[in-house]
Amino acid sequence: MEFDLEQSIDLLARTPGTLKTLLGGLSDSWIRAREGPNTFSPFDVVGHLIDGEETDWIPRARMILAREARAFEPYDRFRHHTRNADRTLASLLDEFADLRAKNLAVVRSWNLTTDDLNLPGQHPALGAVTLKQLLSTWVVHDLGHIAQAVRVMAKQYADEVGPWMRFLPVLTDREVPRS
Amino acid sequence: MEFDLEQSIDLLARTPGTLKTLLGGLSDSWIRAREGPNTFSPFDVVGHLIDGEETDWIPRARMILAREARAFEPYDRFRHHTRNADRTLASLLDEFADLRAKNLAVVRSWNLTTDDLNLPGQHPALGAVTLKQLLSTWVVHDLGHIAQAVRVMAKQYADEVGPWMRFLPVLTDREVPRS
Repeated sequence: MEFDLEQSIDLLARTPGTLKTLLGGLSDSWIRAREGPNTFSPFDVVGHLIDGEETDWIPRARMILAREARAFEPYDRFRHHTRNADRTLASLLDEFADLRAKNLAVVRSWNLTTDDLNLPGQHPALGAVTLKQLLSTWVVHDLGHIAQAVRVMAKQYADEVGPWMRFLPVLTDREVPRS
Repeated sequence: MEFDLEQSIDLLARTPGTLKTLLGGLSDSWIRAREGPNTFSPFDVVGHLIDGEETDWIPRARMILAREARAFEPYDRFRHHTRNADRTLASLLDEFADLRAKNLAVVRSWNLTTDDLNLPGQHPALGAVTLKQLLSTWVVHDLGHIAQAVRVMAKQYADEVGPWMRFLPVLTDREVPRS
């Protein structure tokens, strides 16, 4: 499918509500579980998405629209650990919803043209990218982390399903380590 | 984590709302896409979950509680294709929410004891199982199919993310074929 700005904004607008329905009010045993070292719990996923709202997508898009030639700041994948040490999931879900709504209003206010979407940026590790690729990645990044949160939750019952294990691939999927 | 009936019911109750927030109102290009032959689109996922409500979880649990020794009926993984050929996603999402709410009310009405949860059943392919394993599988099955729907959606932008592909494992994960 080709990138579509309206549909992308529509999908991005759904993520806070999806995560609130999925996670809001769950006990720590569900939201704090991880798959392994340096992987994210559902709680971490929400924090990581907040980091994206504050430090990644909009700042990078602004650099592109401002025709800045320097590379983006790297996305600190573990900023949320210290930032949210004393936070509750409920407050993070609310904060994420608020940040996302504000950021999507910013994107709408840009009235992006096809030419804008093809403007170049410089990723610190990946090199030349475009605004359209950045916005597509924002959508896929959301969906990937929803899938991760759901998978981590499913694994909490891995020892409870008995012989059904082999019909439930979500229990054996794993985060692919970064190269 | 050990099986917990209340928490399981809580999780199962969230799935219709999660899927409605995620999928409701999306265009066909998002909800009808598949990863490959004999795999499920997000539309198919909702139909497959409805099939589970009508033909799998509760009928099997009833057989266990009735101490029936015969094997469960097999779960027809493609019943939804003909059943829902003329349906809209919106109507399926509503139907799923309705069926799920009724089924969870049935489960609550059973007032299951620890002894009940350990009652045996006979799976047509997997052999001896317990009621607790069946209910755990119901939860994991939901979560697995939410992850699947999200993953299939993410892949629609696989050609749009450019160099970011290698930071987005959700784009390269695949359904593990059944043995």
